[in-house]
Amino acid sequence: MSDVRADDQGPWLSPENLDFVRRKVPMVYVDVVPVRLDGDGSLARVGLLLRSPREGGLWRTVISGRVLLHETIRAAITRHIEKDLGQMALPRIPASPQPFTVNEYFPTVVPGGYADPRQHAVSLAYVVPIDGDASAQKDALQLTWLTPEEALDPAVRGECVSGHGALVAGAIAHLGALR
Amino acid sequence: MSDVRADDQGPWLSPENLDFVRRKVPMVYVDVVPVRLDGDGSLARVGLLLRSPREGGLWRTVISGRVLLHETIRAAITRHIEKDLGQMALPRIPASPQPFTVNEYFPTVVPGGYADPRQHAVSLAYVVPIDGDASAQKDALQLTWLTPEEALDPAVRGECVSGHGALVAGAIAHLGALR
Amino acid sequence: MSDVRADDQGPWLSPENLDFVRRKVPMVYVDVVPVRLDGDGSLARVGLLLRSPREGGLWRTVISGRVLLHETIRAAITRHIEKDLGQMALPRIPASPQPFTVNEYFPTVVPGGYADPRQHAVSLAYVVPIDGDASAQKDALQLTWLTPEEALDPAVRGECVSGHGALVAGAIAHLGALR
Amino acid sequence: MSDVRADDQGPWLSPENLDFVRRKVPMVYVDVVPVRLDGDGSLARVGLLLRSPREGGLWRTVISGRVLLHETIRAAITRHIEKDLGQMALPRIPASPQPFTVNEYFPTVVPGGYADPRQHAVSLAYVVPIDGDASAQKDALQLTWLTPEEALDPAVRGECVSGHGALVAGAIAHLGALR
Repeated sequence: MSDVRADDQGPWLSPENLDFVRRKVPMVYVDVVPVRLDGDGSLARVGLLLRSPREGGLWRTVISGRVLLHETIRAAITRHIEKDLGQMALPRIPASPQPFTVNEYFPTVVPGGYADPRQHAVSLAYVVPIDGDASAQKDALQLTWLTPEEALDPAVRGECVSGHGALVAGAIAHLGALR
Repeated sequence: MSDVRADDQGPWLSPENLDFVRRKVPMVYVDVVPVRLDGDGSLARVGLLLRSPREGGLWRTVISGRVLLHETIRAAITRHIEKDLGQMALPRIPASPQPFTVNEYFPTVVPGGYADPRQHAVSLAYVVPIDGDASAQKDALQLTWLTPEEALDPAVRGECVSGHGALVAGAIAHLGALR
Repeated sequence: MSDVRADDQGPWLSPENLDFVRRKVPMVYVDVVPVRLDGDGSLARVGLLLRSPREGGLWRTVISGRVLLHETIRAAITRHIEKDLGQMALPRIPASPQPFTVNEYFPTVVPGGYADPRQHAVSLAYVVPIDGDASAQKDALQLTWLTPEEALDPAVRGECVSGHGALVAGAIAHLGALR
Repeated sequence: MSDVRADDQGPWLSPENLDFVRRKVPMVYVDVVPVRLDGDGSLARVGLLLRSPREGGLWRTVISGRVLLHETIRAAITRHIEKDLGQMALPRIPASPQPFTVNEYFPTVVPGGYADPRQHAVSLAYVVPIDGDASAQKDALQLTWLTPEEALDPAVRGECVSGHGALVAGAIAHLGALR
């Protein structure tokens, strides 16, 4: 997962308070796998962001961020897509609140969980088709649209942030495009 | 379910052969619940068709029809929507093959099954958002866009063909709009 | 939703801290609809708890509670079932992390959200078959196993805590038992 | 997919009729991925069958078979598990009719479809936890319980019948056990 995002503070939460809260309760996140569909609805491409974290190196990630106090899941999905892909992306916000999976991130080693040194997070994962123009915004260096085969390549998965490689493979499976 | 649809014969199946096949194996169907979404992805309206079956009376139905030999599920969904709502409906064909439910129709009374005097059918049910202009085509008298509350009204459900009232309620539940 | 449960404090969270945290971020919850299945896997009964909240009156609820810091979703489901139905319930903890729906509760009026005067909560909803002996524990007055028809009765739904009537109807729809 | 199974004829269908019907309509199938769960509900092992098809060689498959006329999906799942794993397997038949995915098999090359030289089949895929004793029955040589890692090994996937390698990976993803 990426560093704390500026817009994820919200009006109710200073950095000090966020530090405090993270030591008390799990955080609610959404993970969004952006995709391009063919005309018949089948999967054409999966979008991956390239980020340069504070710690150095390069990471591939999907779109991921907190749900703020008083914010609906749909509003959080919309906000995070706009933040990462811009205002012209024309995302199809999910009609159903049912995520295709739920990921759990922990600061300590927990069987079945992924690693996030910052916090315990419970993340609802959605696939979101993108119909408009999308480009990497300030938090990210680059947006790459990969074929399912490219996205499943072990080298690509090795570059992904904790959990996001499996998340992308799970999204491809959910869309019936695993081969 | 409606009477046999002309385009459901396909090139491989005469009416006599269809009669024969129906006495041998279950038929594969798709049920499509057409919906209008608000800008944030939440459910605004559910589309119901009014039909006049050969037996007389009036029936409300969703879109429903056979999957033909050599036809993919996505192609069948597309074809049946075009047949019932016209060519300008701009449906968002499902990105995932996972139906939100599966309905079983039987010519005899089977616990958990719905009635279809013609055949045993296994029907994969999908919610399909409609972005364009839709109007009832020749097989139907009228297309009505109902609010979730209207669609759940017992009077409306009472007018629905076997299974379609529960199907619409299940679609509304799947979209998180049951109240 | 019920009052705060003693075991939902956890070792990291005093009542004062919980008050503080609730004004900063959404809380992660699980909602569990306990069911009895017939031998063939079809739905026989839905379990509803009768509670007497501090404010007076009587409420019907499903099982609902917080996910604690460092606790997995499966562990939270197990803990809350044990708390409400006892140690002999023999629940089938979900094999998949995918909830059948997600409910959002808000202290203010939000379209599409349910009411919870205490907090903003995001609740992952699961159906859990119960194979053993279950009885209402100290937090609840009574456990009632209702047929799907009884559980869908408007009178029963009117007695349910905010959101839980629709949650039960959604669970019944998910299990293919809506009629 | 395996050769025709004796019990898949049913009382209504001679081999000649089955040949005829297969040239007219798609067949309804169920695919069942048998799994062993840990006490907390998480995935421990995936069951794969080793078969020796008429054409020679060795194939790994999950449980797969036709839904007969007048047979419910749950009854078909139960029958095929009993046929392949024996009468002591104690399967947890799915409470929900919603499959985790749907696979399409075609005798010709269709984008997005898997190969089945015998027929066009639409197959509803379910994960079924096995609590009892299971052993390969007459149609299969051996039942092997693999860890998720072993089941995802490219060598194992290469031994799988068309579609079943991806099916197993999709089941593991659905259970949140992809790493």
